[in-house]
Amino acid sequence: MMWGTIATWPFSLQAVEKAAAVLQKNGTAMDAAEQGIHLVETDLSIESVGRGGWLNADGKLELDAAMMNGDTLEIGAVAGVQHYEHPVSIARAVMEHTRHNMIIGKGAESFACSMGIKAADDTYMIPENIRKIWQQNKENPIGHDTIGIISVDQNGTVVSATSTSGANGKIPGRVGDSPLVGSGFYADSQIGGAAATGLGEDIMRTCCSFRCVQLMASGMTPQQAVETVVRTAHEAILAHGRKPDCIALVCMNKHGQFGAAANHTGFSYAVCTENHPAQIIGVSPLAGCCIDCFVPEINQTVKGEDGI
Amino acid sequence: MMWGTIATWPFSLQAVEKAAAVLQKNGTAMDAAEQGIHLVETDLSIESVGRGGWLNADGKLELDAAMMNGDTLEIGAVAGVQHYEHPVSIARAVMEHTRHNMIIGKGAESFACSMGIKAADDTYMIPENIRKIWQQNKENPIGHDTIGIISVDQNGTVVSATSTSGANGKIPGRVGDSPLVGSGFYADSQIGGAAATGLGEDIMRTCCSFRCVQLMASGMTPQQAVETVVRTAHEAILAHGRKPDCIALVCMNKHGQFGAAANHTGFSYAVCTENHPAQIIGVSPLAGCCIDCFVPEINQTVKGEDGI
Repeated sequence: MMWGTIATWPFSLQAVEKAAAVLQKNGTAMDAAEQGIHLVETDLSIESVGRGGWLNADGKLELDAAMMNGDTLEIGAVAGVQHYEHPVSIARAVMEHTRHNMIIGKGAESFACSMGIKAADDTYMIPENIRKIWQQNKENPIGHDTIGIISVDQNGTVVSATSTSGANGKIPGRVGDSPLVGSGFYADSQIGGAAATGLGEDIMRTCCSFRCVQLMASGMTPQQAVETVVRTAHEAILAHGRKPDCIALVCMNKHGQFGAAANHTGFSYAVCTENHPAQIIGVSPLAGCCIDCFVPEINQTVKGEDGI
Repeated sequence: MMWGTIATWPFSLQAVEKAAAVLQKNGTAMDAAEQGIHLVETDLSIESVGRGGWLNADGKLELDAAMMNGDTLEIGAVAGVQHYEHPVSIARAVMEHTRHNMIIGKGAESFACSMGIKAADDTYMIPENIRKIWQQNKENPIGHDTIGIISVDQNGTVVSATSTSGANGKIPGRVGDSPLVGSGFYADSQIGGAAATGLGEDIMRTCCSFRCVQLMASGMTPQQAVETVVRTAHEAILAHGRKPDCIALVCMNKHGQFGAAANHTGFSYAVCTENHPAQIIGVSPLAGCCIDCFVPEINQTVKGEDGI
């Protein structure tokens, strides 16, 4: 079967390349997504995921992550985890070694410790320049980006996974969409997977990732599904008297076809499939629902389209 | 407009009666749901919600709760909160006094403190008999019930809210469906609301509450919607190679019509609307997807049907 992988934001190109290498050698989608995310979690230059991520209002780094195995609908998620470089691996351990789906805060840290996962101290996790940016922007928080990745392996397993530091300057303990099943991620190997990035609070209002997989199940192409989800999320928020913030999604079906959409400028993603080289692709905002919101500087190329 | 309220399990009758009293006097659905849940959170005889709830594997009481305002799609949720009698009120404060939707653990406790909500010590929160049951059942956890309540007020606002101690003997920090939007609860005043109870891990696999509201939006009656959700959740879990555990939902549309369904014996709910007196109603398990699982002893009356 066709393998493929797609992830949010240009900084995920390295994750997509790593995941593609795993998938090409007939590795599992679980390993591909996890190993891809590891690179982004470790990379200090990425200010919104893992080590070097945005700090909360108390200057602490609290990380959220999740994985979903579409073969079994098994879920592993963690939120509010300090002192661990790879929250996605704690999420995977929750899925594989407990009867639970989600463990948070100190409980997740104790669980990670009990699984033999090595803790890391703040000197390693929080570089000085990130602390300086946090001090300068404490009153005016900026930034909330997530790596969301979908991987489809040669056995047809679809996995969706996320990792994020959450919103910069968040209230301690704040959880966004990324570790919440159906909002930040969803996967069903009989259909496909989806993952979201943007303001988690708005993504949660209409369970964007679950809805995207539902729409693919109903017969939409991945690109039709993801555009419909972003448009209806944006419009539902407006119809309930609120101003929508940034919402973006990527998705891939079990055949390795993919799509991406956003209600704002500046979104782009990385993708690689068996017959599509690793590439960053820019996404034009949906006509009629484009808002201004903070996004990092990126290079746009072409509008996302269904891959083959 | 027609007012009404419905909640999971017979122990919620007091909550439904309280909520109905608020709604009858033209109070808001937010106040009705919150004040109804308060009674259940305080009642020591209810072993799965609030004070007197199930303890985690370390013998601590960690509470989860959420509210969703269907007028605005605003969400407030907390998880893993210790030392507070009314987690649902912290959830409401998250919704009304922060830019976030969900705050967990110590962060939620600090936030509650900053809002002037009074903390409670373990002597008050954990009665001796609960600690004895916990000690006797540490190796063989039992029980995982939630109050999920939907209230519809005379202005047409639909609110869904939940409160639970989560699964007995859970790994510290475990979070089930109850504080997760789309899984444990969902509300949209243009359609209706839903809330779930049972094994949270299984309810999360197909985002049961969001799906229930979607199906009501598609034209199903509340009873058709809730039966379809429970049946498809049960069948999806089987189709992905797993054995389903307990799943039960209640729902109410914006007209005060309601429904309930379960994939197991022993489920019942409490309901009261403008023209339906407060009553506990038993639910027959869905034909073809009935499993054995732990449920508390209850009195069944008649099968749930759409109210008018």
